[in-house]
Amino acid sequence: IHRLMPNERLIYFGDTAHLPYGDKSRESIIRYSEKITEFLISQGCKVVVIACNTAASYAFKILEEKLAGRIPIFNVIDPMVEKVLTIPNVKKIGVIGTKGTINSRVYPRKIKKAKSELKVGSLSTPLLVPMIEEGFFNNKISKTIIHAYLSKRSVANIQALILACTHYPLIKGEIQSFYKHGVEVIDSAEVTASYVKEHLEKEGWDSGKLAGNHHFYVSDFTPSFEKSVNVFFKESIHLEYYPLWKEVEE
Amino acid sequence: IHRLMPNERLIYFGDTAHLPYGDKSRESIIRYSEKITEFLISQGCKVVVIACNTAASYAFKILEEKLAGRIPIFNVIDPMVEKVLTIPNVKKIGVIGTKGTINSRVYPRKIKKAKSELKVGSLSTPLLVPMIEEGFFNNKISKTIIHAYLSKRSVANIQALILACTHYPLIKGEIQSFYKHGVEVIDSAEVTASYVKEHLEKEGWDSGKLAGNHHFYVSDFTPSFEKSVNVFFKESIHLEYYPLWKEVEE
Repeated sequence: IHRLMPNERLIYFGDTAHLPYGDKSRESIIRYSEKITEFLISQGCKVVVIACNTAASYAFKILEEKLAGRIPIFNVIDPMVEKVLTIPNVKKIGVIGTKGTINSRVYPRKIKKAKSELKVGSLSTPLLVPMIEEGFFNNKISKTIIHAYLSKRSVANIQALILACTHYPLIKGEIQSFYKHGVEVIDSAEVTASYVKEHLEKEGWDSGKLAGNHHFYVSDFTPSFEKSVNVFFKESIHLEYYPLWKEVEE
Repeated sequence: IHRLMPNERLIYFGDTAHLPYGDKSRESIIRYSEKITEFLISQGCKVVVIACNTAASYAFKILEEKLAGRIPIFNVIDPMVEKVLTIPNVKKIGVIGTKGTINSRVYPRKIKKAKSELKVGSLSTPLLVPMIEEGFFNNKISKTIIHAYLSKRSVANIQALILACTHYPLIKGEIQSFYKHGVEVIDSAEVTASYVKEHLEKEGWDSGKLAGNHHFYVSDFTPSFEKSVNVFFKESIHLEYYPLWKEVEE
């Protein structure tokens, strides 16, 4: 989003107190997502992007209804589904993500609703997030883990693979290598950013110049999370501790 | 604890809403541990065991002071330190655990306080918990990850290794194989249980017969956590959802 829309001010909230979301319950994720969205709106956002597949799988529909008429809300799933449908000669699509995302079956449901003759094979790959956060990529460990997962029968004989977790773009190259570039690998970052950009331009909401500072809030602060943020953003970022849960607990 | 003291009633609280603790901040872990301990006491426990190295590293001293005169509290660290000091011909001890435990430096501090000439090499190994929870052990993935970690210089040339995380007993055999059984590998489960048993017997607090049902509470419920609990306990367990955080958040 920052690279495609450098003039837009970003207000980010990372729920590090509950991280990772992949193995939390549906009910909890909905409750967290509602509270975080209200916080983002209180900070003056013009649109909200749920930049997490697990939260989008469980909470998007509920939030969209709740916010109807107030503010547009985007997820990382619909842009990916739209994108995968445009790829020619695809008969079977693979989806990898956290347990939450895969168990929700949101991708197979949406893809089959749009084009019922497509086959969809899903696989939860929960070790990939901690592996990436540990900085284990492009090495023997990541190669072994990726190979073990992608060799499973559920994702065999695919022509396209959806990376249904916002961490996975960091290992996109390794995944493409596994398939010897014979499978179309689709990641959410680029696809979702383009989708949001198009929407802002269509509505005439895009910024002509940067209107203030970015803010990166976290609900719990650790130096190691700050370090892993820099792996993603590729610019030095100052994280601000915002006690969204502590306030209400005390 | 259950195997060594089958007559004792267990009240367990797993903070699955914030799990894993290994990468949360010191301040948050102290706050969570205080609240959980109060809950356990309200359930009628006669002693409390902090069965998590990260929580013990950050919160034990504070809780011990707070509870002085009310209820005895145990951790998994002191029994391990006591144990490692009894092993003959040890010059350097390795310690592996989560980022929280390793960064707290609690093991080197306690070991060197007892015997200053001992060398201690620490290494955080954050991929091991999700690897174990995924059920990846005794296979190629666990072998590659364990090999990569234990080959690091900080834990080279050791005669004893402390498994400073309550998940690691499940891979103790693999770790012993890595060292070809030439290193004494110490895990917290057995050592801590013996320590608690000794204390109960000394005080005459041990139960003659089982005084009621065990209770296993969790702060967030997911089927996959219940599944991984059965890997550890080796008996079918009914988890009870107890909204320790939700109550105060709403």
